[in-house]
This record gives sequence, C-alpha cells and structure tokens, in this order.
Amino acid sequence: MIAGFASTPAPPYWMVSFTSARTAVDGDAYAEAAARMLELASIQPGFLGAESVRDSAGLGITLSYWTDEAAIAAWRAHPEHAAVRARGRADWYEHFEVRVAKVERAYSGRADA
Amino acid sequence: MIAGFASTPAPPYWMVSFTSARTAVDGDAYAEAAARMLELASIQPGFLGAESVRDSAGLGITLSYWTDEAAIAAWRAHPEHAAVRARGRADWYEHFEVRVAKVERAYSGRADA
Repeated sequence: MIAGFASTPAPPYWMVSFTSARTAVDGDAYAEAAARMLELASIQPGFLGAESVRDSAGLGITLSYWTDEAAIAAWRAHPEHAAVRARGRADWYEHFEVRVAKVERAYSGRADA
Repeated sequence: MIAGFASTPAPPYWMVSFTSARTAVDGDAYAEAAARMLELASIQPGFLGAESVRDSAGLGITLSYWTDEAAIAAWRAHPEHAAVRARGRADWYEHFEVRVAKVERAYSGRADA
C-alpha cells in the first residue's frame, strides 16, 4: 500500500464522496473529530478504505469505500458518527456535497505497476 | 454555485475519481496541463462539472461528473487528453488510482440550505 491510497478490491464496490469547504472554527476539535471518525469508520463492517485530501484554502475531498449500500447506511446510522455530523453541519463546514456511487471500474498506475 | 464545488443535477449520473500522488517533476508544466485539461473537459459533451483538491504533500483527488459512461469513454479517447495522460503517467505521478462510478444518491449541506 502506498501512503494516502486505499487498497480496494476489484469492483463492484461502493464509494462515498464528501467534498467540503471548512469554516475557520475550532481547528483542533475538528482535526480530532476527523481522525476519530476515520478510526471508527475503519472498524465498521464493510469498510474497505478511505482517501482524504484538504488544501490550504480549506477545500477537501474525502472518499470512503464500502462493500455495499447496507454498510454505508449502517455507518451513517452509527450514533457517534451522527453526532459528529451534526456538529460538522453546525460549526465546521461552510458547505458540503455528499455523493453515494457504485464503482463499476477501477485501475491504477505507476508505483504498483 | 460555491467556489470549488460542481453544480451537478439530480442522480443518476457518473463520477470519475482520480486520486494521485505527484512527483516533484516540472511543476509549471504540470499546472498548465492540469488547467488545460479542465478547460478541455468542460467543453466535452456530457461533462457536468469537476472538483479538485491537492494538499501540500502532493496528494490530490479530482472528481469529474458526467452524464453517462459514453461521455467518459469519449473524453478518455480524446487525443489531447490521451497525450497528456501519457505524460502524466511517465513524469508527473508517483501513483494514481482511477475509479468510474455511477452516482445513485447525492445531498448537500449548509451554504445552499
């Protein structure tokens, strides 16, 4: 595995994209919550991996990968995740877009070639 | 529209994710090619928008949105795009992962609420 990349299986599987613009509010609490959510997501049934980038302007994209839609729904319903999402909506994000998609094809290049 | 976000229609539509780690090679030529590719993609039939983030460590995620798989295939076959992909593979990326997915659900939060 290469740093920053998820090791996903052959498709089909599912992907959730989260594109977000951060507010300037409470950077430490946000960073802590983000790390905790990744840690918690990674032990959920059906979790396959995640990739996440945020630039210096505060725009970020996180991709998480899941075996199926039921795993995504279960993670969405997780009480701690739901509580953190509510705080994110109230305090941490100017705007966000979530998309749930079925990965049909995938390929990679270079370092594992 | 909020800066950095694509204005996509109601699903279903298609998404291509491109997660990449940059080399240190030729930053100016890369930036120029990346801008040109976005400009060229945006005038292709079926293009719906794109979102792109790269962090200070060189890890990036670009999401592009398309009406259907045929539009993605046509863009992939575009000669100028194919030539730039070859250069990217040779010079600009340590590693990349491409995923082609059908967006089934989408929702947004905050600034447009």
